[in-house]
Amino acid sequence: MSKHIAVILSGCGVYDGAEINEVVLTLLHLEKQGAIYTCFAPNIDQFHVINHLTGESVEQTRNVLEESARIVRGNVQDLALCQPDEFAGLIIPGGFGVAKNLSDFAVNGTNMQVFDAVAKIAKAFKNAGKVSGYMCIAPALAPHIFGKEVQITIGHDADTANALETMGATHCVADVGDIVIDETHNLVTTPAYMLAENIAQAETGIRRLVEAVLARC
Amino acid sequence: MSKHIAVILSGCGVYDGAEINEVVLTLLHLEKQGAIYTCFAPNIDQFHVINHLTGESVEQTRNVLEESARIVRGNVQDLALCQPDEFAGLIIPGGFGVAKNLSDFAVNGTNMQVFDAVAKIAKAFKNAGKVSGYMCIAPALAPHIFGKEVQITIGHDADTANALETMGATHCVADVGDIVIDETHNLVTTPAYMLAENIAQAETGIRRLVEAVLARC
Repeated sequence: MSKHIAVILSGCGVYDGAEINEVVLTLLHLEKQGAIYTCFAPNIDQFHVINHLTGESVEQTRNVLEESARIVRGNVQDLALCQPDEFAGLIIPGGFGVAKNLSDFAVNGTNMQVFDAVAKIAKAFKNAGKVSGYMCIAPALAPHIFGKEVQITIGHDADTANALETMGATHCVADVGDIVIDETHNLVTTPAYMLAENIAQAETGIRRLVEAVLARC
Repeated sequence: MSKHIAVILSGCGVYDGAEINEVVLTLLHLEKQGAIYTCFAPNIDQFHVINHLTGESVEQTRNVLEESARIVRGNVQDLALCQPDEFAGLIIPGGFGVAKNLSDFAVNGTNMQVFDAVAKIAKAFKNAGKVSGYMCIAPALAPHIFGKEVQITIGHDADTANALETMGATHCVADVGDIVIDETHNLVTTPAYMLAENIAQAETGIRRLVEAVLARC
């Protein structure tokens, strides 16, 4: 029977939502490795909308669930409907959406909070001992989900690594194609676009994260 | 020296823009096969905005170039700046954006026109004898770019195939992983999400299209 993985999206576009390449590569490798998946996203307004050509903020309101639906051709559900019991594991791709729409890390830094709807689901996977895979900036959520002893990587960006260590995590320096496995917490992390300079580089680490997640289901 | 391919995007999301998976897989395989690429999109408002969760139209204005930038992390240029002389070939991924933002096929069917800015670039590649790769619904542009004898595939959707034949094309039935090569016009086509039921299925045909395009540069 295929392993069924929940994937949490945070919008559509690296600067105000989910990192699109990371989502597509995650789902591609879940398929290629024989797993099935269901995507979820919070049914809330985005923190803001960024013009991805200029980097400037736009006076517009967009909904995280509706925008996430763009990547997956409508095949996404309200995160409030996620039943962790039905899944063997959880993957959270990155993008600033993780720091703006799943938490307030982009605004409050080391004083961040993971939004309740996200924390509830992520902690349910942790409490059941099920595997989680967080990529790119998503490991910033980990100290709040797994506790202060969690081992993670976001690559080798010193400022971000220091912020994660301030929140109590142990940061492991890694290259773009590496994964870090915290055996105690059953958590797999990879830098993805924290380091990737192109899609092929991102793919290596994401493929390995998916392999490690499925091996632990 | 790496082969340099121009890629024309048409927004961000299958129902009102470029099919996101097709774009990511195209660029991934260009990278993996050692090519370089530059993405372009028309700097115009989208035909409309579709809520990808419900399929309903939204009262909002979005710009094709700005939305295309979401997929490629800002790394896209105004189509008006494209200099075909600088490139060895052209690829056009699909999505309804091809039929709404690059042409009016979605509105006018077999009476369609390819928008001038797109036709000018696509014809420049054709007139120079350079290879083109069109996927998904993008082959609907081909009779207007290459003339009525062009051989193409959109898979095996009878209504769409009939429309293309009404416009003068010769439609070749193909499966999702197949490519069709029109040797006379140096055009490669593949059905992609005209038939694909998942990302892995789409990848096979897109990888083969990229291989064929690069072999002809």
